[in-house]
Amino acid sequence: MKIYDFTLAPNPRRLRIFVAEKGLKIPTEQVDIFAGKNRTPEMLAKNPAGGLPVMELDDGTHLAESVAICRYLEGLHPEPNLMGRDSREQAFIEMWNRRVELNLLGPAARAFQHTNELFKGRIKQFPEYGAAQRETVAQQFQWLDAQIGDKPFIAGDRYTIADITGEVAVDFAVQLAGIPMDPALKNLGRWHKAVSSRPSAKA
Amino acid sequence: MKIYDFTLAPNPRRLRIFVAEKGLKIPTEQVDIFAGKNRTPEMLAKNPAGGLPVMELDDGTHLAESVAICRYLEGLHPEPNLMGRDSREQAFIEMWNRRVELNLLGPAARAFQHTNELFKGRIKQFPEYGAAQRETVAQQFQWLDAQIGDKPFIAGDRYTIADITGEVAVDFAVQLAGIPMDPALKNLGRWHKAVSSRPSAKA
Repeated sequence: MKIYDFTLAPNPRRLRIFVAEKGLKIPTEQVDIFAGKNRTPEMLAKNPAGGLPVMELDDGTHLAESVAICRYLEGLHPEPNLMGRDSREQAFIEMWNRRVELNLLGPAARAFQHTNELFKGRIKQFPEYGAAQRETVAQQFQWLDAQIGDKPFIAGDRYTIADITGEVAVDFAVQLAGIPMDPALKNLGRWHKAVSSRPSAKA
Repeated sequence: MKIYDFTLAPNPRRLRIFVAEKGLKIPTEQVDIFAGKNRTPEMLAKNPAGGLPVMELDDGTHLAESVAICRYLEGLHPEPNLMGRDSREQAFIEMWNRRVELNLLGPAARAFQHTNELFKGRIKQFPEYGAAQRETVAQQFQWLDAQIGDKPFIAGDRYTIADITGEVAVDFAVQLAGIPMDPALKNLGRWHKAVSSRPSAKA
């Protein structure tokens, strides 16, 4: 088993944190997205969609999409459980994971891609659209603060993949897209401090 | 059990097709997104993210996000299986479902939202960005045609949730966003004809 990884990108980090929380050690190989190494014929044969991470299974098959890889690993190593123990719990965790991914990580990524120098020439940039996506991220920070309320974690009383996606999304938004997190958002700040203090945050 | 539905939107349709493929009958209630009825205080109490579909469970809890609702229903009614029988198969189906959702349905939705009259005043529209998303959809049609190749279905040899998402994405792109599907894409056309001829396509 082996993971094709890229340290700077959010989806590979999501998988690295998941792997760390499971207590697993899986060999990784860096593939430089900024140098286009994820789009070589060799890498496209492993993942024709061109993204990272990609996991090579022991039989040589390649599995892409971070959440799909997490689900595979959850099946192999059910504990500590991060995606739900029965279909009802799985469904509610998936709801939260999707909300954070689609409504926060997505806009943060588009804000970055449409305004950052690194994407000049790689995509057709629309900086005004990127600026609007930044506003969306700021609104989503407020939304998430209200949703967390006094819950310890995003999906409820225990740490799950929704917290991993949230952590990756917030860090990407703040550190890479340069969208500040308002310190007045006390619930979000308390939750972010808690997830960031876990050893997996360094993964 | 009850589903808050809106006939014209792609995610509610995804759930309706899933329910039809399972052979289930679940009462629905229409919530008009275009009239903003999904953002009344009453509906936001059910789904604070404001989207549809939302399912009301028998204990009064509300579950949102179409794929999460599908996963819950799959747990209650495992056959016909649409999301994978073991974690390996679940992971590969999820990979395909995510590829189609994120790379095809997402751009089709953004193309529509940024260019259609219906979204004027509802979001800040960037028509040039919307036009670029149309090009992305056309490229994704080509990509999906190549990926389907001579496979009967998107994730391989049987019909899964990835086909449902693909069917919803293609129909939304063609019928609502007005992005034509090139008839030269023979694999995509053959697959689309097959999924469209299933009784569930009318759901």
